[in-house]
Amino acid sequence: MIIYDVENFPNPLRVRIALAEKNALDTVTFKPVDLMNAEHRSDAFLAKNPFAGVPVLELDDGTFIAECPAITEYIDHHFAGPSLTGETPKERAVISMMQRRAETQVLDAIANYFHHATDGLGPALETDQHKEWGQKQHTRALKGLEYFDSVLAKTTYVAGDAFTVADITLWCGLVFGGFCNVTIPASLIHLQSWHDRVAIRPSITV
Amino acid sequence: MIIYDVENFPNPLRVRIALAEKNALDTVTFKPVDLMNAEHRSDAFLAKNPFAGVPVLELDDGTFIAECPAITEYIDHHFAGPSLTGETPKERAVISMMQRRAETQVLDAIANYFHHATDGLGPALETDQHKEWGQKQHTRALKGLEYFDSVLAKTTYVAGDAFTVADITLWCGLVFGGFCNVTIPASLIHLQSWHDRVAIRPSITV
Repeated sequence: MIIYDVENFPNPLRVRIALAEKNALDTVTFKPVDLMNAEHRSDAFLAKNPFAGVPVLELDDGTFIAECPAITEYIDHHFAGPSLTGETPKERAVISMMQRRAETQVLDAIANYFHHATDGLGPALETDQHKEWGQKQHTRALKGLEYFDSVLAKTTYVAGDAFTVADITLWCGLVFGGFCNVTIPASLIHLQSWHDRVAIRPSITV
Repeated sequence: MIIYDVENFPNPLRVRIALAEKNALDTVTFKPVDLMNAEHRSDAFLAKNPFAGVPVLELDDGTFIAECPAITEYIDHHFAGPSLTGETPKERAVISMMQRRAETQVLDAIANYFHHATDGLGPALETDQHKEWGQKQHTRALKGLEYFDSVLAKTTYVAGDAFTVADITLWCGLVFGGFCNVTIPASLIHLQSWHDRVAIRPSITV
């Protein structure tokens, strides 16, 4: 199993945390993608993922899996250990919904703000910016954080009592926020206390 | 089980087709949401889905499930019948990846084009348009259709030999395209022949 990624980037981090939760980091070969020099837009990489995103998982039979929810789904079912995506239909649906909200309202909102309304990865890579729309994504992200604060006022983790991919995605959204000064407002005490709980998990401190 | 939706709208259609594939349409109560009069932005509806989207599934225990991939995941596991989301880790991952691509590259791209760069649902509802960005989503959608044509040159369905949620999502993307003149270019013969195959499924002709 090979993972093509960029260490410390937010989406790759989702996959690395999922692997760490499964005690499986050592079973995977990581191959770095030189994103700052646009390797992700080379023909060789586009053959792995035509939409140029990292990370990409290559299975032993040569199948390429892109898109973080798909990769973490594979990891969760392939490796033993506590479930990260749920077992009953209801658990699976709630976790899927909450992961999606963590993506659209926080991680993707922050990513779009970063790439469209800030310098992002620099002028050589940010060739298609829409600043006004990007700025709106900043507002969206802050509303997203308020929503998760209201959720975490009632539950230990984002999708209930157990740590799941939804927590990983929200965590990585906040990691991305760290790149562009989107931090947890002081008033969001439930989100902050969730953050402090998650920060000390072994999978996060790896 | 209750579904709050708007009949014939693209995202609600994803859920209705999944139910029809499972022969389960009759087991669900549909409650219409008066979206054109902004019922989806009322407090009563926001209590069901704070992000105001339809459809929303209400389980018998009162749990609300929003986000189509989460709802169709629930339907697939709750009802008997051929799997729409896959069984092995690899099947599940490939279907998840392909459904995601059908969303981001086609359905969401067309939705964003419709809401941002056309009259959309009219001035009372389209209060936050970003036309230039929206226009780019039109280009993205057409590239998405080219991608799926290249996929369907090699496989019967979007994620392989079986009809899955990835096909449902792409189909509903094209239904949305019908609202705003995004149609299959004549050169995309593999996509067109997939379209013709899917069009005659009983779940589609309901």
